[in-house]
Amino acid sequence: MAKGDETLQRILQEGLEMASLQGLAGVSLAPLADRAKLSKSGLFAHFRSKEALQLKLLETAEGLFKSAVIEPARAAPQGLPRLEALFERWLGWSGRAGLPGGCPFAGAASDYDDRDGPVRERLVASQREWLGILRKAVDDCVTRGDLRPETDSAQLAYEICGIYLMHQFASRLLRNAQATARARTAFERLIAPARAEVA
Amino acid sequence: MAKGDETLQRILQEGLEMASLQGLAGVSLAPLADRAKLSKSGLFAHFRSKEALQLKLLETAEGLFKSAVIEPARAAPQGLPRLEALFERWLGWSGRAGLPGGCPFAGAASDYDDRDGPVRERLVASQREWLGILRKAVDDCVTRGDLRPETDSAQLAYEICGIYLMHQFASRLLRNAQATARARTAFERLIAPARAEVA
Repeated sequence: MAKGDETLQRILQEGLEMASLQGLAGVSLAPLADRAKLSKSGLFAHFRSKEALQLKLLETAEGLFKSAVIEPARAAPQGLPRLEALFERWLGWSGRAGLPGGCPFAGAASDYDDRDGPVRERLVASQREWLGILRKAVDDCVTRGDLRPETDSAQLAYEICGIYLMHQFASRLLRNAQATARARTAFERLIAPARAEVA
Repeated sequence: MAKGDETLQRILQEGLEMASLQGLAGVSLAPLADRAKLSKSGLFAHFRSKEALQLKLLETAEGLFKSAVIEPARAAPQGLPRLEALFERWLGWSGRAGLPGGCPFAGAASDYDDRDGPVRERLVASQREWLGILRKAVDDCVTRGDLRPETDSAQLAYEICGIYLMHQFASRLLRNAQATARARTAFERLIAPARAEVA
């Protein structure tokens, strides 16, 4: 790897750790340069603005999410096993992906919900895409006969997201040891009435 | 009201608006002094540190939440009507309480989940208290025969919180026009299987 590439990788790694700990909005150039042990001009050679940095960090987080959650879940058979795999890999994914704090997307959501601009737009696009993947996984359950035909996939995807957000809140803020067990119970309770009866 | 009290009220009002828009962690002394049209020394006369200010802002937000959500819900009869009133008043409470952005507690949750110290401790205590109130409202439903005796009130309170967090996410970040309808559907789906059958 060329030296410039190595430096860029270090910037992105440290930046993502900061985003995980303090929220994406808290990642700015000077503290990140300190953290990555670079001069401010060394960082500026890669990113000319806080916004350009944050957009690149979102893109990096999307790539990490894809390889930690979406891709491995594809190993599970389509239908309910895959929906369950997506949910299981989503819970606590950021810790398993090596980030020291919480989910960078959940943190960014409350940072950016009242700000306009490219960072918000990219975050919204990535979250809509993820909700779309969840919804498609529910639709596949219906197509394959695992869930009832009248299942409202957008509603189910919405509720699964709520379970995830509460898991973040309970496990990270409240340090509730039951958080994961409660999230699984909630997911099972959500799915159970939608299950198609086996003929 | 004495002039010092008026100034304090103005500081808290402006500070809470900033917390609602940018997150509690983003409220610091210099920008708040600007916003409240005070000199930095005028603000310092009331708060000597960012932390003291943030603790007072949390206390103020707790008071606002109590008068916007908890107290009015007491007008509803104990049991299911009161649980429903708590949920309905919770959804979008910060807008109805006059705040320009999102829920200051939900925003602070991701800001403070990886920081130690008094602000985090106060936030955790207030959120545990609120979860306790929700749980007690569920228990009252069981006592009064509105919900089945085997209802797990801690689980139900956890899931209601998830619906609230997703409502914030969907309505504020995604600007999803269906967010409130979806939250109500989720609440009803959660409650329906727990309803006691009417004899």
